[in-house]
Amino acid sequence: MSRAGEQWPPAVLDFGRGARIGLEEAVYCANKQAAQIEGVLAQHEARRHPCLLTRLFPQQFAALADGWRSRLDYDPVSHTAFFMDGRPLGAEPMVAVVSGGSSDAPVCGEAVRTLAFHGVASTRVEDVGVAGLWRLMDRLDEIRRHPVVIAVAGMEGALFSVLGGLVGGVVIAVPSSVGYGVAAAGDLSLRSALASCAPGIVTVNIDNGYGAACAALRALGLNGGRPRPADPTA
Amino acid sequence: MSRAGEQWPPAVLDFGRGARIGLEEAVYCANKQAAQIEGVLAQHEARRHPCLLTRLFPQQFAALADGWRSRLDYDPVSHTAFFMDGRPLGAEPMVAVVSGGSSDAPVCGEAVRTLAFHGVASTRVEDVGVAGLWRLMDRLDEIRRHPVVIAVAGMEGALFSVLGGLVGGVVIAVPSSVGYGVAAAGDLSLRSALASCAPGIVTVNIDNGYGAACAALRALGLNGGRPRPADPTA
Amino acid sequence: MSRAGEQWPPAVLDFGRGARIGLEEAVYCANKQAAQIEGVLAQHEARRHPCLLTRLFPQQFAALADGWRSRLDYDPVSHTAFFMDGRPLGAEPMVAVVSGGSSDAPVCGEAVRTLAFHGVASTRVEDVGVAGLWRLMDRLDEIRRHPVVIAVAGMEGALFSVLGGLVGGVVIAVPSSVGYGVAAAGDLSLRSALASCAPGIVTVNIDNGYGAACAALRALGLNGGRPRPADPTA
Amino acid sequence: MSRAGEQWPPAVLDFGRGARIGLEEAVYCANKQAAQIEGVLAQHEARRHPCLLTRLFPQQFAALADGWRSRLDYDPVSHTAFFMDGRPLGAEPMVAVVSGGSSDAPVCGEAVRTLAFHGVASTRVEDVGVAGLWRLMDRLDEIRRHPVVIAVAGMEGALFSVLGGLVGGVVIAVPSSVGYGVAAAGDLSLRSALASCAPGIVTVNIDNGYGAACAALRALGLNGGRPRPADPTA
Amino acid sequence: MSRAGEQWPPAVLDFGRGARIGLEEAVYCANKQAAQIEGVLAQHEARRHPCLLTRLFPQQFAALADGWRSRLDYDPVSHTAFFMDGRPLGAEPMVAVVSGGSSDAPVCGEAVRTLAFHGVASTRVEDVGVAGLWRLMDRLDEIRRHPVVIAVAGMEGALFSVLGGLVGGVVIAVPSSVGYGVAAAGDLSLRSALASCAPGIVTVNIDNGYGAACAALRALGLNGGRPRPADPTA
Amino acid sequence: MSRAGEQWPPAVLDFGRGARIGLEEAVYCANKQAAQIEGVLAQHEARRHPCLLTRLFPQQFAALADGWRSRLDYDPVSHTAFFMDGRPLGAEPMVAVVSGGSSDAPVCGEAVRTLAFHGVASTRVEDVGVAGLWRLMDRLDEIRRHPVVIAVAGMEGALFSVLGGLVGGVVIAVPSSVGYGVAAAGDLSLRSALASCAPGIVTVNIDNGYGAACAALRALGLNGGRPRPADPTA
Amino acid sequence: MSRAGEQWPPAVLDFGRGARIGLEEAVYCANKQAAQIEGVLAQHEARRHPCLLTRLFPQQFAALADGWRSRLDYDPVSHTAFFMDGRPLGAEPMVAVVSGGSSDAPVCGEAVRTLAFHGVASTRVEDVGVAGLWRLMDRLDEIRRHPVVIAVAGMEGALFSVLGGLVGGVVIAVPSSVGYGVAAAGDLSLRSALASCAPGIVTVNIDNGYGAACAALRALGLNGGRPRPADPTA
Amino acid sequence: MSRAGEQWPPAVLDFGRGARIGLEEAVYCANKQAAQIEGVLAQHEARRHPCLLTRLFPQQFAALADGWRSRLDYDPVSHTAFFMDGRPLGAEPMVAVVSGGSSDAPVCGEAVRTLAFHGVASTRVEDVGVAGLWRLMDRLDEIRRHPVVIAVAGMEGALFSVLGGLVGGVVIAVPSSVGYGVAAAGDLSLRSALASCAPGIVTVNIDNGYGAACAALRALGLNGGRPRPADPTA
Repeated sequence: MSRAGEQWPPAVLDFGRGARIGLEEAVYCANKQAAQIEGVLAQHEARRHPCLLTRLFPQQFAALADGWRSRLDYDPVSHTAFFMDGRPLGAEPMVAVVSGGSSDAPVCGEAVRTLAFHGVASTRVEDVGVAGLWRLMDRLDEIRRHPVVIAVAGMEGALFSVLGGLVGGVVIAVPSSVGYGVAAAGDLSLRSALASCAPGIVTVNIDNGYGAACAALRALGLNGGRPRPADPTA
Repeated sequence: MSRAGEQWPPAVLDFGRGARIGLEEAVYCANKQAAQIEGVLAQHEARRHPCLLTRLFPQQFAALADGWRSRLDYDPVSHTAFFMDGRPLGAEPMVAVVSGGSSDAPVCGEAVRTLAFHGVASTRVEDVGVAGLWRLMDRLDEIRRHPVVIAVAGMEGALFSVLGGLVGGVVIAVPSSVGYGVAAAGDLSLRSALASCAPGIVTVNIDNGYGAACAALRALGLNGGRPRPADPTA
Repeated sequence: MSRAGEQWPPAVLDFGRGARIGLEEAVYCANKQAAQIEGVLAQHEARRHPCLLTRLFPQQFAALADGWRSRLDYDPVSHTAFFMDGRPLGAEPMVAVVSGGSSDAPVCGEAVRTLAFHGVASTRVEDVGVAGLWRLMDRLDEIRRHPVVIAVAGMEGALFSVLGGLVGGVVIAVPSSVGYGVAAAGDLSLRSALASCAPGIVTVNIDNGYGAACAALRALGLNGGRPRPADPTA
Repeated sequence: MSRAGEQWPPAVLDFGRGARIGLEEAVYCANKQAAQIEGVLAQHEARRHPCLLTRLFPQQFAALADGWRSRLDYDPVSHTAFFMDGRPLGAEPMVAVVSGGSSDAPVCGEAVRTLAFHGVASTRVEDVGVAGLWRLMDRLDEIRRHPVVIAVAGMEGALFSVLGGLVGGVVIAVPSSVGYGVAAAGDLSLRSALASCAPGIVTVNIDNGYGAACAALRALGLNGGRPRPADPTA
Repeated sequence: MSRAGEQWPPAVLDFGRGARIGLEEAVYCANKQAAQIEGVLAQHEARRHPCLLTRLFPQQFAALADGWRSRLDYDPVSHTAFFMDGRPLGAEPMVAVVSGGSSDAPVCGEAVRTLAFHGVASTRVEDVGVAGLWRLMDRLDEIRRHPVVIAVAGMEGALFSVLGGLVGGVVIAVPSSVGYGVAAAGDLSLRSALASCAPGIVTVNIDNGYGAACAALRALGLNGGRPRPADPTA
Repeated sequence: MSRAGEQWPPAVLDFGRGARIGLEEAVYCANKQAAQIEGVLAQHEARRHPCLLTRLFPQQFAALADGWRSRLDYDPVSHTAFFMDGRPLGAEPMVAVVSGGSSDAPVCGEAVRTLAFHGVASTRVEDVGVAGLWRLMDRLDEIRRHPVVIAVAGMEGALFSVLGGLVGGVVIAVPSSVGYGVAAAGDLSLRSALASCAPGIVTVNIDNGYGAACAALRALGLNGGRPRPADPTA
Repeated sequence: MSRAGEQWPPAVLDFGRGARIGLEEAVYCANKQAAQIEGVLAQHEARRHPCLLTRLFPQQFAALADGWRSRLDYDPVSHTAFFMDGRPLGAEPMVAVVSGGSSDAPVCGEAVRTLAFHGVASTRVEDVGVAGLWRLMDRLDEIRRHPVVIAVAGMEGALFSVLGGLVGGVVIAVPSSVGYGVAAAGDLSLRSALASCAPGIVTVNIDNGYGAACAALRALGLNGGRPRPADPTA
Repeated sequence: MSRAGEQWPPAVLDFGRGARIGLEEAVYCANKQAAQIEGVLAQHEARRHPCLLTRLFPQQFAALADGWRSRLDYDPVSHTAFFMDGRPLGAEPMVAVVSGGSSDAPVCGEAVRTLAFHGVASTRVEDVGVAGLWRLMDRLDEIRRHPVVIAVAGMEGALFSVLGGLVGGVVIAVPSSVGYGVAAAGDLSLRSALASCAPGIVTVNIDNGYGAACAALRALGLNGGRPRPADPTA
């Protein structure tokens, strides 16, 4: 009866992104209805294109039709799902995912799963915040063995500066929204990462484990999108 | 010719504060005219009451009449002055004043001078920010020997959390306005102190070295204003 | 089926904190699942280590397994629980916990219970906001008998300045999130504490009764982590 | 040579405001050039209309042509000037202008002078901030004798709440921009006034002594614009 | 079993406020439990003291024991209740309550009911926002007959400036939290009131109809707390 | 039993707006009760005046009485409804509604439906965000055929600048609240539109599809409220 | 001697913009050195391309070499200059530039001059803020004769809503940075424009008279970049 | 005469940083006095350690003693200086430094010079903002040849998203403080980088060209601090 607008429009997916920059488009599911998500999956199915879903919360997962739900590899902590498998997982962990507290686990998980979808293994070093500095020091040698470190911290984000002063590889800070009062849902930790006195730390958006993993893939040159010079010191 | 308001009103000084809470009122000179400051000094002179001046910037100091200026013990880095001496200085340093960078020196100095005015000696441990963690670790035992630590840091203020997790005495954080961009003139460091994951750190206003020193005096019970129980564990 | 991240990682607890700085690590339960909390309790059980839980809301408490729930000393107003008792309670109250309004009771309770867990008794002086100044004045002598005052206030936080000008002991301000409109969930009260014209007030994060209690323990030297000089005026 | 816009346009003055709402339009001089101010004065001259100038800073006053400058009753502390006298001054002070610190004097002065221009006398009670509560208490009876109180305070603005709980007349809060760090140029004091737990306090913009005086005139019904009911309790 | 804090503390009511400043303490019920509210009512009952309750939401009202609920005069739009009647209502309306939109009705109602509790009648002029200026102009003469105008507006709050330029009596702005996006829950309207180019408008906190009514009582001198000079122009 | 305020006041509708400025008043339903909405419809019914309802959420729609609900043309994605039809729809689409992502569909729909109610057809070009620039480029010629473009984008709003540099017609930016973390519920996208380096882009409030459509009607001169000069270059 | 970076890079000018979207690139001079501005002029000279300069402050103008300065048509109030003339000026004013106060003149001037550079005449209606509503009403018929209105206002920006409810043409709001305290350098006025209850107002960045003029050109279809349908109601 | 604090304390330099993480400590000169800078140079001289100085503004450079000044390789656009040369410059440019506008040149220069000090050559691609998209497209192939892109943009920062969707290498966004009004001194551009819809972009603090260069060195593995696995896909 109405003249326009009754349906959610079909998504216009960027299937060429992988070829263009070596990173697959992930489907950000927060606030999406079941029908929208199923429509996206159907488009991937039709092209036999694997798909990574992020921010797919348990109640959304439960609302999907059985036929779709049973075909997803779903992780309820990181709120991610794989539809058809991504690239085969490498044997050697290339990224250390380090966190300040156990409440950061969903964000760590989103990074770990995104890396895995793109075929990169990682090592989790969680709950090593600097209030008990020994926890970080105990695992420093292990962390240093990875070319890229993804650091996740909420509250005041002091972990970023301490880590950045001790590790020479790529350090990607992911502020998490853990905290209360002045922590301001991650804004404090974000700004601590940006203003860190340790040189060369880089930052992504609050709780953006997916973005950190993509940045790690770029830094590793494992997304296929980056020229790898024969001799970088030439 | 005007009907009202041509003169700055004389200050109403709280000479009873020392007796009431054991802390002398300091004269905050920022934005005060020379005539106002001289009026305050004259009131102290008349009562033979020593006086601490803070935020007295060099150009303000230079604008005072010679007779007043020559009687001030002025420190151009901390922007503080003593008019008549305060209490005699104790032999044993009771407070460690620790800073993240050399640009924090004016704030450290304001704390050190306020303590000195009240008779308390302190130890300066400056420029030991956590990007080079060894600088702090090298001096940790020395810091720990003081019952109170005043920690001054700008930028992301990671020093507060690291220190708070390593030291068991009173830790008073003073965020400094050192930094740029998201450091936001001390707001970031302030919030880092407040949201620190190290338990029991307390905080004062940005650049408020004077306030930190007053808090230290309260914590030491050296302001005379605090009951000292015979046996606190009884 | 998924390759990583399905489980919440076990917490890495800082059991050495008590020995290091004299304050036990508390378990901050907000947003933690029942299984995570039970895992933490199990770790404490295994080491016969008493444990303080904070921000344990009634619905979380109700979701714990009976075996664990029955062993907790739970307080539904302050949202705290003791697992195994802490230190024996001292006879003499060392801290006055003063509040502006009856809605501040949960924050007051968190401070009182944290102190009790560490063996320190306290006196509650609640609902004495300065809009009815006589309420505070009536109890001023009682408040002054304690070496440390924890002041809790929301809204505009005028209590902090009035108290700080009348009491010579340690004054720890805890801004509470009580209020609406410009009170901004505690941000106004926090900033009032920091900018107070009364000298030497210190502040902790919004609603952080736990942190205030830890700061009180540090100031009292009752955490065992602070050197107590023989003669502080020497 | 240019086609448009080379001149500042002449001001369009609201000479009917006095008749309409009983308050004369004041000329806000901040950022105005000497030529603009002189143009405004010439318009008043032509109509024989007295004029109040606010935020006329000393360097602006000095830049006016001698002929205009000599005819102004200028007050360099409040930055106000009268061009031709306003209404004759009443004998009885109707407004108490109370401030927290001596740095609030320019704002107090702006209120006092605006009242005087409209013929209302006032009493200044300055530098009675609550950190030394006795200063306010000593003068409370005097303050209470005025039907309207204008309270000026910067920093944390605790004065507003204490005063509002003790005085039953009209209380108009003027936040001042005095302070540093979290005081945020008056924003903190403004919010403290608005969120005050004392009932019925009203507020004007930061440093707006002129506006507070206008509000006082409205409340006194002395602006002629307000109906005065024969028997308000009927 | 717990050592402290299991009960909400009884409220410390300021029964002397009416005598002191002529305004009764209202009970702000938001976030209060039924038991707390009932405790407050019992204290009033015991002293035969009428009581105004604000922010008493329907679900809270429903949760009260029947014996208390049946004795309350409850208004579900303004969320206010009277326990025992306040002062008898005057015949002549002294306050015009003007609003920009029909969604402001709860705030208008809180003001109207608070005035009524103190015996002052008022006139409601609602939904006259300036986007349709004729709505306001049609009722301007009626509004002008009241010595005090309470203006309630959300969104951009343009009503305040238009009204303030047309009405010579007391104008009290109440920003409401109506709006979305940049309206920021009333912050925009609040700031519009404060920065209004119409002289002498005063402002209270967002949605604070109670505070506006108290301010109106102060301005009318009907709270008994204000000196009424025999001849204000003397 | 209560003395005032028990009922929501009837809305004062601006039925003259269409004649005055050529735009019908829409009824903003967010937070309105069913009875309020029905009252508004009854007023329109009585005058035979068509009505556009916005922000009418499904649960509100469901709560309307059957008699009213069955007469509404309701669109659950855009949350709009028509009560009686608006103007007949033109054949030629005059506005392109372009969006960055599929989550912007409700905002796009609000614009499309508002245009349709006023008789203007539009073309939807959704999900063409600049991370996959080809999606926008593919449809650029189509977009350029419309005299007005409404651009809807959340997150960082880069779409506005790219579009503004490529299209010469009217470009109206509608920031949407899609995003998380620093996107800050549309504030980031809003500010990106305002600070865009592409000249002549204009902006409306966050999520305000209705306002953008009204602005388009003004720009098209199709609201009847705008003079159309015979020869604009004369 | 240095290896890189000693010179400011030459500007990369978008000379194709006029052909692409019908608007010439203006040179934003704020913070540019004389040498940079002269370099830009030389590029225009070489192509015989007229050039509009904005935010060229008097001291910058004075610092240009005589040869360049004498060839500029400079307006010191609007801080704009023409290098070679733009399009010939139309006879009929198409845009009304309306402002709230005389301090808005620089922003009005920037709009007027940008329009003139593109050949469009305009009418200035300045200093008609709503605190004296008659000033606006007196000139309303004149304003309504223009298809586009550019409204400039600082402070609380109430002008936008009043104007938007009375005028049916295109209304482009330009918030100006005039004001103090909560006016926050234009942020308040900006938000008032965005949240205005008058439908279809659009907004540009604070003080952006240039952008408003470009938007007016787009709306008038006078930039040549917009399709002009033969019969817009078909 | 004063008891403490008259001298700025000597800097505690982190000479071990190069060995630890492969990045030399740079000396941030903003707000440092000439004597402080000379002290730092003397420490480097004594150890024969090259030194990079940043934010050394022309007036500071001019204030240095001749003996020091003549030995600095100073660049007045980027405000950087080399004291003794850094590592020899590689032949092949490894980093593309891309900017939105010519005003971003100082930030670009800081990045270019920091890279050069560490021996890495770079390519400058400046003034290619997306309002004229062809400028970027013309140079896209050249940009893509570098493994790392440093993108500098102020205003709304749309450049980051467009670039991030087209380039597969490491993309490091540096928000610059260029802009006015809502651009908010770089805050807008910063947030646009963080919320970008293009995956895997990373960000550093506003105007932090030094930090971006350090991050590039980490990503290139050219700082010597990062393990380089033999076969990253193994």
